[in-house]
Amino acid sequence: MTDPGSRIDPLAFFRPKSVALVGATDKSGWSVATFANLQVNGFTGDVYLVNPKSPEVHGTKAYASLADIPGQVDLVYVMTPIDVVPDVIRLGAQRGTRHYVVLTAGYGEVGGEGAVREQELLDLATELDVTILGPNGNGFINAADGITPYGLPIPQPLIAGSVGVVLQSGALASSVLSFAQSRNIGISLLVAMGNETIMSVTDVVRGLVDDPKTKAIALFLESVRRPEEFAEVARMALAAGKPIVALKIGRSVKASRTAQAHTGALVGDDKTVDAAFAQLGVIRVVSLEDLIITAGLLAETGPLPGRRVGVVTPSGGASEIIADRAEDEGLDLAEFTPETMAQLTEVLPSFATPNNPLDVTGYVLLDRELMGNALRIVAADPGIDFVMMLQDLPRQTADPDLALQLYTRNAQTIRESPTPIIPVGNVLTDINETGRMIQAGSQYPQVAGGIEHGLTALGHAVRWSEVVRRHGEGQQEPPRVEPVFPDGLPERRGSWAEQPAATFLAANGVPMVPSELAATPEEAAAAADSMGYPVVVKAAVDGLEHKSDIGGVKLGLASADQVREAVEEVLGAVAAAGHDGARVLVQPHRSGGSELLVGVVRDPAWGLTMAVALGGVWVELLGESALRVLPVAQDEVRRAIGSLRGVQALQGARGTEAVDLDELARVITRIGAVAHALGDELVALEVNPLRASADRIEALDALVTWSGE
Amino acid sequence: MTDPGSRIDPLAFFRPKSVALVGATDKSGWSVATFANLQVNGFTGDVYLVNPKSPEVHGTKAYASLADIPGQVDLVYVMTPIDVVPDVIRLGAQRGTRHYVVLTAGYGEVGGEGAVREQELLDLATELDVTILGPNGNGFINAADGITPYGLPIPQPLIAGSVGVVLQSGALASSVLSFAQSRNIGISLLVAMGNETIMSVTDVVRGLVDDPKTKAIALFLESVRRPEEFAEVARMALAAGKPIVALKIGRSVKASRTAQAHTGALVGDDKTVDAAFAQLGVIRVVSLEDLIITAGLLAETGPLPGRRVGVVTPSGGASEIIADRAEDEGLDLAEFTPETMAQLTEVLPSFATPNNPLDVTGYVLLDRELMGNALRIVAADPGIDFVMMLQDLPRQTADPDLALQLYTRNAQTIRESPTPIIPVGNVLTDINETGRMIQAGSQYPQVAGGIEHGLTALGHAVRWSEVVRRHGEGQQEPPRVEPVFPDGLPERRGSWAEQPAATFLAANGVPMVPSELAATPEEAAAAADSMGYPVVVKAAVDGLEHKSDIGGVKLGLASADQVREAVEEVLGAVAAAGHDGARVLVQPHRSGGSELLVGVVRDPAWGLTMAVALGGVWVELLGESALRVLPVAQDEVRRAIGSLRGVQALQGARGTEAVDLDELARVITRIGAVAHALGDELVALEVNPLRASADRIEALDALVTWSGE
Repeated sequence: MTDPGSRIDPLAFFRPKSVALVGATDKSGWSVATFANLQVNGFTGDVYLVNPKSPEVHGTKAYASLADIPGQVDLVYVMTPIDVVPDVIRLGAQRGTRHYVVLTAGYGEVGGEGAVREQELLDLATELDVTILGPNGNGFINAADGITPYGLPIPQPLIAGSVGVVLQSGALASSVLSFAQSRNIGISLLVAMGNETIMSVTDVVRGLVDDPKTKAIALFLESVRRPEEFAEVARMALAAGKPIVALKIGRSVKASRTAQAHTGALVGDDKTVDAAFAQLGVIRVVSLEDLIITAGLLAETGPLPGRRVGVVTPSGGASEIIADRAEDEGLDLAEFTPETMAQLTEVLPSFATPNNPLDVTGYVLLDRELMGNALRIVAADPGIDFVMMLQDLPRQTADPDLALQLYTRNAQTIRESPTPIIPVGNVLTDINETGRMIQAGSQYPQVAGGIEHGLTALGHAVRWSEVVRRHGEGQQEPPRVEPVFPDGLPERRGSWAEQPAATFLAANGVPMVPSELAATPEEAAAAADSMGYPVVVKAAVDGLEHKSDIGGVKLGLASADQVREAVEEVLGAVAAAGHDGARVLVQPHRSGGSELLVGVVRDPAWGLTMAVALGGVWVELLGESALRVLPVAQDEVRRAIGSLRGVQALQGARGTEAVDLDELARVITRIGAVAHALGDELVALEVNPLRASADRIEALDALVTWSGE
Repeated sequence: MTDPGSRIDPLAFFRPKSVALVGATDKSGWSVATFANLQVNGFTGDVYLVNPKSPEVHGTKAYASLADIPGQVDLVYVMTPIDVVPDVIRLGAQRGTRHYVVLTAGYGEVGGEGAVREQELLDLATELDVTILGPNGNGFINAADGITPYGLPIPQPLIAGSVGVVLQSGALASSVLSFAQSRNIGISLLVAMGNETIMSVTDVVRGLVDDPKTKAIALFLESVRRPEEFAEVARMALAAGKPIVALKIGRSVKASRTAQAHTGALVGDDKTVDAAFAQLGVIRVVSLEDLIITAGLLAETGPLPGRRVGVVTPSGGASEIIADRAEDEGLDLAEFTPETMAQLTEVLPSFATPNNPLDVTGYVLLDRELMGNALRIVAADPGIDFVMMLQDLPRQTADPDLALQLYTRNAQTIRESPTPIIPVGNVLTDINETGRMIQAGSQYPQVAGGIEHGLTALGHAVRWSEVVRRHGEGQQEPPRVEPVFPDGLPERRGSWAEQPAATFLAANGVPMVPSELAATPEEAAAAADSMGYPVVVKAAVDGLEHKSDIGGVKLGLASADQVREAVEEVLGAVAAAGHDGARVLVQPHRSGGSELLVGVVRDPAWGLTMAVALGGVWVELLGESALRVLPVAQDEVRRAIGSLRGVQALQGARGTEAVDLDELARVITRIGAVAHALGDELVALEVNPLRASADRIEALDALVTWSGE
């Protein structure tokens, strides 16, 4: 498949000055809705209706064909029966229209014949050099410019703003719009992707990263179809300081099966999605509420300076709920400085205590300066990175002027504060007409919705801000390895175990336990003498599994005599098991330290992915591992190790030896770099165990599996 | 402190036919609000205002004193300065008023002098045999009966319904009311507790359990002040099938400190709260949204029959989100039977697939029977316990009659279904006026708010329903132990280690490793002969710590000679360390199996609490333990063991021996019963290790700490 993405200009696509609705008819709800949407949401360009059978549709003149339209058509919105779609596009292309929305369904999503039609559509688009959104998609809502060729009713009022929304499920659009409206969060552009035959989520996101009106990007994803492209665009977003918030389904087995049925798209391991998103700074949320609230918050605040939050509330009960949730989210409710406390004591009523979270008490109802004073004092505390202020917009008010005055004053305090002040509401209820009026009149900022979701959003915001800062400080680069293949290695096909795998990795900079092949007891004893005792002797013979079971492994050999004896026993045992030409491997016998395993496998969606785990109970019973998509830099590997709870065992807990975790990260990064350098040749690479002790980090065994048969 | 709770009749308290507001004045916002609330929310009884200085308040006649009021006063609402409060109550009591709300603050919450005043208030109430709600509380809202002596503005409309709400933070009341209103969830009674000097949360909950209008109880708790009483009331609620949903703060260190500052109440370990709530079937939530949505849902559905949910939605994207969330909540998205699938295929459009979760597709817009048909088919599937149906109430509608017709039809399908059908909305937005109108007109049930919170509520509902069913099937009783103290034990003070602790536990039915005291090598060898080899020999001497370090412990002794030699060495080592009169303990040397620890400690709030943990990495690095408040029955202990991830190690994972978990539960239950029987005498009891292998469960060591000095 060619990559049409590079030819797509999303910003131009979503800003047509003229639109033709082909297949317009009074009998179709889609047609009715699309036409109405273009009328009521501010579109000032020309709208042409095309219907070969009726000269009037929706009470307006209709043309029999695209060919009859007098003016230029920037966008053709296709609602015709499926058989006619190619003709419409050909005709449109002849007239110079490069952009199409295809609402018509019956393509890849139905399988069989539909998939053939979808390939034909792609071929046609490539041939004619046109861009198609869809098929099987409802179109888009460019709220910023009032251009809304969209096939379902749009909840009113449509609020323009700075959150771009891209959805792989059209049916969710109205929920997203309703919810954004209920939070008074404005949308720049909403796109319902449909089948992504030509234009993909990644293309639209690229456009949103470039779009000055879009400050944050919210995605509903069933699958990421071109992960490498997506990763590139995510890095662009990070560089631009624009957050991408994604509700990616498929966390459960059931959901990934449902998604596969729904779109036929390849669904990889969900833990790999988590890993990739974390590496790329994509914020993953689990609810539509968090999707919109988090994107809405970050669209307004941009990156936050740190985790230390000062909380100002008029309610003791609320501040306790906030304290619990802040800890959940890893926020730091820093102690106020003595100066801050002294200043607060001056403005607070006598029965209040000047602690963080700060309850200024219901006295705010009497002292209208209290909240503002407290905010200014807390915001000036040098130990505070940002302030969370608990205040809802009013839902009903007896005195709108007074309310407007109050919110205007607070809005000013917020605007003038050198430290970000972020309003959060108590519970997640609509910002209704009263609230919208007060918010507009006072130029009050976004109110993140309710303590629960507001703190989820703040947690995401501070963690994302850390990724942005790291990125800004110059990201570490993954090391590049030019793989070396020493002489004597077997052909690169099937699997390499033990000696060839160890030789290969050692030659490429992975510390391997010393290991020598020996054919006789004498050779083995000489090898052992040179490496120092105790040593291990293992049978080295192709195709022999479960060596220990037949007596093919001897541990803890303390002298040359013991080695000679062991080699004879091992070779005898191997011969007795019917294997000829056996030799033995001699290795130092290591003890103490911890064992890890480092495995690289190919995720069907994201490609080569590395898992790091501690051995024993950690991986076997707890299933704990940290994943990273390759390539990966050492600092990221260091964070991966740090994310394992088992890391305690590497830090000297329970009497284990403390390991140099930076050095461990360096070794694991190297393993990842070697695997990545092997590219498509590699199916899997496993280092197991990687032994880490206070004085040495060393791979004891490895396995490399090649794609060649 | 006496227990005034037993004298309180909450239902009468909250249903006064006449109310006097003492300290009423136009200058107080509380007075204005309370008077207005009584006017606008349907109170039909007499309201008397009392102000010694003004004959008219709030545009109404005011009396100079309670004494001047002509009629009977059922409830006196006190807003006077603190000095006058006792006089008001004395005068009221003389006139026969037994019920008081004291809004006035300045009591225990300010400490010092305030605490003295609070004790005086309690003494006065006891002397006069009157009941007080408060002080420092805003009163109550009896929405069911339209009786609202409440000191803050009540958001309109106040919706009457079946959720009872009890709050330890008055400031949260308006958030709770606003949110309930936004979900169109009606309240029976809301009580802002204040300081709970006389009437406690438990008293109110007891009343709500008895109140036929209340179907579910929602609590905001900073602390549970009388856990035993609370536990009793919680069991009554369980027996009545009325859910208690609690937002209990203090999960974080910070919040528990804030709560302590706020109320001065004793805050125990938060994990003990979790344990106690789980044992009592109290549903713990973390947000105000979940508090109200969960209570609202259960008020309508009552217990659900099981975990197997059939999901019917008109959206593929939504059904994927639901699948993820259902798995989070432990719901079982059961496969439909072939019959169900065949029937669904008949009613669904051809492009839909008849799986669970079921996406009936946007075709519902064209086929108005589709949703109802699908619901009936899924509800009839024998593998489904209940149906979740995704449908919001409309927020705006062009054709109210059509909408009403549609919802009325669905409401009928829901009502007539033998299997519960539960509507859940897409996102958490308000049920606005349009929605309320449609809901009232169609008699449509509660719509649990949004997929995210709706599924949280459904998860809580099914887990709570399981507790209710267990309770209904006849709960196992905790075993009762009459503690036996064999002769020769020391006085019950300080700590008992090793021999006395082991003797005591063994005498009370806890299997202890056999253990004999011996004074000489010969006695020890005889003991070893009788118990079988190998054995362990340990120094037995008071006040000797770290025995192993001085050579006071010998393991793995395989013969009488080895025992004799070991005893001589041990006694020599002890003497060399300056201890006289030492003897030795002889025990069988056990190996293999897993080690647990069972510890009973006294939680400051909940009393004796038992922790069960697996040794090694599980408790040391993961900090994993399962808590239960004593007394506890064996089935509950069995569930506690099952809740540990480390239970895998007891089930034969990683080559360990599989342990009889029922027998293990029996032994641990016995330990708990012994501890519980010791009551106030006991400070702590620890069995560590409790060794569990395939053939034997046995305590190897124990420590009992007594409250006597």
